[in-house]
Amino acid sequence: MVNRIPGAEVVALSDVLPEELAKVAAKFNIPATFSNYQQVLERPDVEAVAICTPTNTHYQMVLDAAAARKHIFCEKPLDLAIDKIEEIDARVRACGVQLMVGFNRRFDPNFLKVRETVQSGRIGVPHVLKITSRDPGIPPEGYIRASGGIFLDMTIHDFDMARYQMGSEVTEVYARATVLVDPVFEQAGDWDTAVVTLAFANGALGTIDNSRRAVYGYDQRVEVFGSEGMVTVNNNTYDSHICLDRTGTHSSLPLNFFMDRYTESYLREMQAFVEAVQTRKPVPVTGHDGLMAVVIGLAAAKSVRENRTVKLSDLYDGSKSG
Amino acid sequence: MVNRIPGAEVVALSDVLPEELAKVAAKFNIPATFSNYQQVLERPDVEAVAICTPTNTHYQMVLDAAAARKHIFCEKPLDLAIDKIEEIDARVRACGVQLMVGFNRRFDPNFLKVRETVQSGRIGVPHVLKITSRDPGIPPEGYIRASGGIFLDMTIHDFDMARYQMGSEVTEVYARATVLVDPVFEQAGDWDTAVVTLAFANGALGTIDNSRRAVYGYDQRVEVFGSEGMVTVNNNTYDSHICLDRTGTHSSLPLNFFMDRYTESYLREMQAFVEAVQTRKPVPVTGHDGLMAVVIGLAAAKSVRENRTVKLSDLYDGSKSG
Amino acid sequence: MVNRIPGAEVVALSDVLPEELAKVAAKFNIPATFSNYQQVLERPDVEAVAICTPTNTHYQMVLDAAAARKHIFCEKPLDLAIDKIEEIDARVRACGVQLMVGFNRRFDPNFLKVRETVQSGRIGVPHVLKITSRDPGIPPEGYIRASGGIFLDMTIHDFDMARYQMGSEVTEVYARATVLVDPVFEQAGDWDTAVVTLAFANGALGTIDNSRRAVYGYDQRVEVFGSEGMVTVNNNTYDSHICLDRTGTHSSLPLNFFMDRYTESYLREMQAFVEAVQTRKPVPVTGHDGLMAVVIGLAAAKSVRENRTVKLSDLYDGSKSG
Amino acid sequence: MVNRIPGAEVVALSDVLPEELAKVAAKFNIPATFSNYQQVLERPDVEAVAICTPTNTHYQMVLDAAAARKHIFCEKPLDLAIDKIEEIDARVRACGVQLMVGFNRRFDPNFLKVRETVQSGRIGVPHVLKITSRDPGIPPEGYIRASGGIFLDMTIHDFDMARYQMGSEVTEVYARATVLVDPVFEQAGDWDTAVVTLAFANGALGTIDNSRRAVYGYDQRVEVFGSEGMVTVNNNTYDSHICLDRTGTHSSLPLNFFMDRYTESYLREMQAFVEAVQTRKPVPVTGHDGLMAVVIGLAAAKSVRENRTVKLSDLYDGSKSG
Repeated sequence: MVNRIPGAEVVALSDVLPEELAKVAAKFNIPATFSNYQQVLERPDVEAVAICTPTNTHYQMVLDAAAARKHIFCEKPLDLAIDKIEEIDARVRACGVQLMVGFNRRFDPNFLKVRETVQSGRIGVPHVLKITSRDPGIPPEGYIRASGGIFLDMTIHDFDMARYQMGSEVTEVYARATVLVDPVFEQAGDWDTAVVTLAFANGALGTIDNSRRAVYGYDQRVEVFGSEGMVTVNNNTYDSHICLDRTGTHSSLPLNFFMDRYTESYLREMQAFVEAVQTRKPVPVTGHDGLMAVVIGLAAAKSVRENRTVKLSDLYDGSKSG
Repeated sequence: MVNRIPGAEVVALSDVLPEELAKVAAKFNIPATFSNYQQVLERPDVEAVAICTPTNTHYQMVLDAAAARKHIFCEKPLDLAIDKIEEIDARVRACGVQLMVGFNRRFDPNFLKVRETVQSGRIGVPHVLKITSRDPGIPPEGYIRASGGIFLDMTIHDFDMARYQMGSEVTEVYARATVLVDPVFEQAGDWDTAVVTLAFANGALGTIDNSRRAVYGYDQRVEVFGSEGMVTVNNNTYDSHICLDRTGTHSSLPLNFFMDRYTESYLREMQAFVEAVQTRKPVPVTGHDGLMAVVIGLAAAKSVRENRTVKLSDLYDGSKSG
Repeated sequence: MVNRIPGAEVVALSDVLPEELAKVAAKFNIPATFSNYQQVLERPDVEAVAICTPTNTHYQMVLDAAAARKHIFCEKPLDLAIDKIEEIDARVRACGVQLMVGFNRRFDPNFLKVRETVQSGRIGVPHVLKITSRDPGIPPEGYIRASGGIFLDMTIHDFDMARYQMGSEVTEVYARATVLVDPVFEQAGDWDTAVVTLAFANGALGTIDNSRRAVYGYDQRVEVFGSEGMVTVNNNTYDSHICLDRTGTHSSLPLNFFMDRYTESYLREMQAFVEAVQTRKPVPVTGHDGLMAVVIGLAAAKSVRENRTVKLSDLYDGSKSG
Repeated sequence: MVNRIPGAEVVALSDVLPEELAKVAAKFNIPATFSNYQQVLERPDVEAVAICTPTNTHYQMVLDAAAARKHIFCEKPLDLAIDKIEEIDARVRACGVQLMVGFNRRFDPNFLKVRETVQSGRIGVPHVLKITSRDPGIPPEGYIRASGGIFLDMTIHDFDMARYQMGSEVTEVYARATVLVDPVFEQAGDWDTAVVTLAFANGALGTIDNSRRAVYGYDQRVEVFGSEGMVTVNNNTYDSHICLDRTGTHSSLPLNFFMDRYTESYLREMQAFVEAVQTRKPVPVTGHDGLMAVVIGLAAAKSVRENRTVKLSDLYDGSKSG
């Protein structure tokens, strides 16, 4: 990707693992490396930074980068606590830098086409949003334990997608989750299977279903139903072949790995960040977007635990002002 | 259909509208007609009756038919009150006649294929059921007011489908419904758009989404996701043509009318009833099935009104024994 | 079908096999049966006859029916000799009766939709026609030997389809055929696999490919490519289910039996004949249509034998006047 | 692409247009540029060259590169004359360098999957090959005049695809071509619409249909039908969205530009060339492949002009020994 975004140059790289750091720098011809990210922030030739570290480091790094007047791309979630994300959002504004949150799926050509179709009015007023989001396989146990749970790690993408597609804030959440895939989730106090109902400020309804393991691949579908029609997307498959034999009609599975499935969206996401920095236009995914997805995720987890509807305004005062 | 079920003969017809009665009898060559259904029940050459009248007449007619020792096919719902359906169920058993409830969609080749696939174990243990069920257009206001509401009139098919596909009873329901299609539903104290979450006794989850009006046709899809795969069905379309021009790739819409969409399932349903009567084997859709779909429907309506999860056992003691 | 065409009644049936005759008459409640078809022709209550006998009997039966002033539906091909079909065509005209040839595929909803799309001008001027026509299995040896060969028995449907879709006469044929499926075809002096190139009077080109055995079912596709687009049809399948598991995406095969595949077209074909007879309007598939398909078939066989292009005008003078 | 093939470095670039040369060199950071390609061949740090010039320059350049002991990638066709291609093939062998011809479509994931399916025996013995190959729009008139005609410029890809998919040499060709798209083709002594029949050494048959302009995009399909099944591929589309409204079901068109459609295959093609050079293994597309596609193309053009079947052995003695 380093070489594929015209106008951007990677001038410095920082990582706490020295070997990784050297290897990646060599592979992509990155001139300067540092074990301490502060040194990157000190460089005058650095205009913007991309923070792709574990969630618990985001808060401090974003604040430091903002203080150093660097524009910031940060992977989701910004943090697991609402007040810290609010603080982040306030500080980057105060420092006059841009903060873009890594909801890469917004840049996927299929999901973008759904949004364009909805925005164009072609399906009329949106009534029902449906998202199916199933991972192809379970992450390592260590990752699960540090992930913040299914709603803040996995469904968070769908919560952002929901807001993106409907162009309206979520007001209430009802979620039901369970462990059907692997007991490791139960041991981590997490769930692997979930169904979520969303109510939107515009009166529409939404439903999300998640599983941590779809044996047939990465299942990522979005559908918006409206007063004048419906738009949906199929999964991306390895190829488009169809084979018919005595046993049936057979074709390829959905892509199985997120790097394959979302290659294009990762590239377009970073292009959009670079372009926003260069043109001083607003980034397309803001700190507010990062905040709201976390609020919905926390509401969903609370809903499962208490088996009841949770209003977003109970968790976050500003939920209606977005 | 009259002529298309070998081994069955329509010997008598009853309707309260004399003109309709005469017209239909003439069209299908039915020898005897009566304005009073009791006269049909008195005939010794009548082995079985099909009750296709408004819901509020089912209770008395079924009891009368059972007393007359006629096997009974009755359209759904049997009644809107749980205790009356329980009484119906008890009485038909006591009279030794069969009662089959008209959940015709079970006999649709597509939904049947989903069930066979699930039952075969091919997709492993079922984890998540998804049903999309959207009507092509809204019924007349009079119908809406007498319908018992969206959950007992429309979603009831999906509740039965859910039990049929998952082979497990529903234990809890959360439903969210609203009026987005037409204010006539609000005026009738009803809703036109709904999203339902189901919890099943086997631990699986389900989601149903409904709309009273899909401008593009009758949208009827079922998907079952399991530990080893997923099975889903597409809608039936008018034809299979695909046309590509400068503006895009275009193909036919889903069938728009329930008589077209479910022609085959209505035929197979009646064949199954006739066969069960003739061979004295159990009917494939029982009074218990009719009861459970109503219980879920009542729970869903209660859930919307109280914005909370409703346990079926709160409405019906026997809900777990099914 | 007997009961499914309003306005038509089967009053008499004739067959040379007495047992068959009795069985079918009983099944469909046909009042009169005759071992000699002449007796059917003598009945004043017979307005029209359907001739569904082996090809070598068509000539005499059609002439006899015409002489008896009965409208005639006759299965394809009318005959294997051009001059006899010309004679048939002349005689039915002289007798003032209608003759409709059984190219049932014209009435298939999918192929009809292709034609409507072409006729509407939506794909512009037609440039290339493509037909894939593969039988699901080989017929009995006796049938093969009496069939007149692949081009007059099987491809004849495609030749008619070509004229029907393009709305233009075929002027030249190049065919290449071989035996790849079963040596029984070679023993019968026939072929089981063929590729045909057609040139049309309007300047367009066409290609047909045939096989006597597609193990995956009845493969019947038509595509018309034009200056402004393309229209094509997929096969009809048993159901619309899609199953994804670890091994791939799987769905149903094309229907395997011509009675299933063309149920609807047989029904509509006979309705069209009955309607034409009743309203005294021209039948939609004429003796000329029956003739031209045979001419193309004979040209194709000649082309294979001589490995060269054959002009239809070399076989039939009137080929351009259609 | 320059940066996307690990292990390969572009060290020099040559072009007769100085401005183009400078621009491309700058864009891709290529250190050395020359107006005379001989200077590239003189450099000791050049291991291999890619010749992407007009067809009439290939012969001399390939011979020069071979003499300079550089491995060669050359765009198709190598030349329009059989004897010159034979000479090329002989000289590169004599010089001990590799020559790979640019039939990039062999590296397309879809067509590769078809080949793998055929090779695996999954569809049994191949009986019929079908290729549809339609360009999205017509090239400039100058290009058309210098192109060698539709069969050597466009269908040549399909001829190579035919040999690649069937794993068997073509023995006879029958082609029919005409001008239906644009009179510019007629003025250039060329055709824009063609249907080709192929006979293969293994007894199978093939059909290709071409058009120079499909208004709906780049239409590139391959189907192989065999004794045990069939494999086919759909076109690559812009995205996978499906939109249903009152007018129909709508989805995206095939990709419209060859650089989009074949991005992946161009990359994999060059990777394969680099790998073959580096590992000293045979290139996957040889001079013989380049020759045979031209022989079939010349035979096709001759077939159209003479309206008859042309045996490849009449044009090229070695046609059977491939």
